[in-house]
Amino acid sequence: MRISELAQEATTPLTAVKYYQREGLLPAGEKTAPNQSSYDDRHVRRVRLVRALLEVGGLSVAAAREVLAALDADDAPLAVAFAAAQHAMSSPRAQDAAPTPASRSRVAALTAAAGWATTDDNPGLDAAARALDGLGTIDFDPSDDYLDAYLTAAATAARADVQALGGRRDRDDVAELMVVGTVLGDPLFAGLRRLAHEHVTHDLFPAGDHDGPRS
Amino acid sequence: MRISELAQEATTPLTAVKYYQREGLLPAGEKTAPNQSSYDDRHVRRVRLVRALLEVGGLSVAAAREVLAALDADDAPLAVAFAAAQHAMSSPRAQDAAPTPASRSRVAALTAAAGWATTDDNPGLDAAARALDGLGTIDFDPSDDYLDAYLTAAATAARADVQALGGRRDRDDVAELMVVGTVLGDPLFAGLRRLAHEHVTHDLFPAGDHDGPRS
Repeated sequence: MRISELAQEATTPLTAVKYYQREGLLPAGEKTAPNQSSYDDRHVRRVRLVRALLEVGGLSVAAAREVLAALDADDAPLAVAFAAAQHAMSSPRAQDAAPTPASRSRVAALTAAAGWATTDDNPGLDAAARALDGLGTIDFDPSDDYLDAYLTAAATAARADVQALGGRRDRDDVAELMVVGTVLGDPLFAGLRRLAHEHVTHDLFPAGDHDGPRS
Repeated sequence: MRISELAQEATTPLTAVKYYQREGLLPAGEKTAPNQSSYDDRHVRRVRLVRALLEVGGLSVAAAREVLAALDADDAPLAVAFAAAQHAMSSPRAQDAAPTPASRSRVAALTAAAGWATTDDNPGLDAAARALDGLGTIDFDPSDDYLDAYLTAAATAARADVQALGGRRDRDDVAELMVVGTVLGDPLFAGLRRLAHEHVTHDLFPAGDHDGPRS
């Protein structure tokens, strides 16, 4: 199919498809004439994937490029591809401050206490520690119970993620779900947490009591 | 204190403080001379908060402005301020596509089945549905069990969020934690989920078995 048909098939604006191509996010088509290429179903799927990574997942073009490279490295062991994708997805943006050592130690101590086997360079450690630092800016020092609830929530979601992988047999399918699931699990959780907030604050702020939370 | 001292006190670059002020994210100081203003501890706290919202929370300047307006509306009932902040924080970006009706219905059906009392205009509904659509781009149709695990995770975190509010008495403190907790709970969870992935895939991909997940 031509590039205009590719765009149509992937329900993505043609300008976006051309942009993905210019940014190296979409493999070249098969040259059929000096100024024309032919695309197939794998291109359609890739356009949809790139769009999901950028628009729903909120990745930068550079991060998406790294994630796709990890996906496309067919000879890399799956665990290595997964680790590479995790790093690309969580790599700190230029403006990110390094977390304080205190927050980093606290996260490490909590995960160790929970029996989690993790390495020091897992990018989640810095990400969680930066969030703790952010909470500290309003003098909120989360209790261990608070953080344990988040640990439990994270483990629940991660187990579901990994179980979902078991339903896929083909290596490419597994790798794709690992990467996309890691990126899109965050907004999925974020959306559901907003809904859960409404549900639980319904009990906390019953109609007519607008002055504060119940103790 | 002067603006340079404010920046120092808040450990934030002076250029950033001036930028926040120009963007209307920081209230004016008290004029002490035609070209000089004096700032106090509330300004220090606000600078730290703005920085956390923008840098850790990843909010746009416009969204941060709305969140702060909700915080500063002293006469608004807490529940109203919270809802306004939720909307500002979850408002779709210009490039966000509307979710498919099928995904929206699925999220609504699952939360209803879980007994959650939520309204149709909760921005989490669209956010979660968009994430489902994104997963659909790689032909991953999450099972009910998968989504239920995420619902459970979201409820666990949301309950912890609300319990943390009970520890604060002052209305401003409660409102601040509601808003900042909503923004920073997402990256906290995201970081911990990356750590949990490593922990659970350690069992799934034991050393030496790099060909695929265990069934």
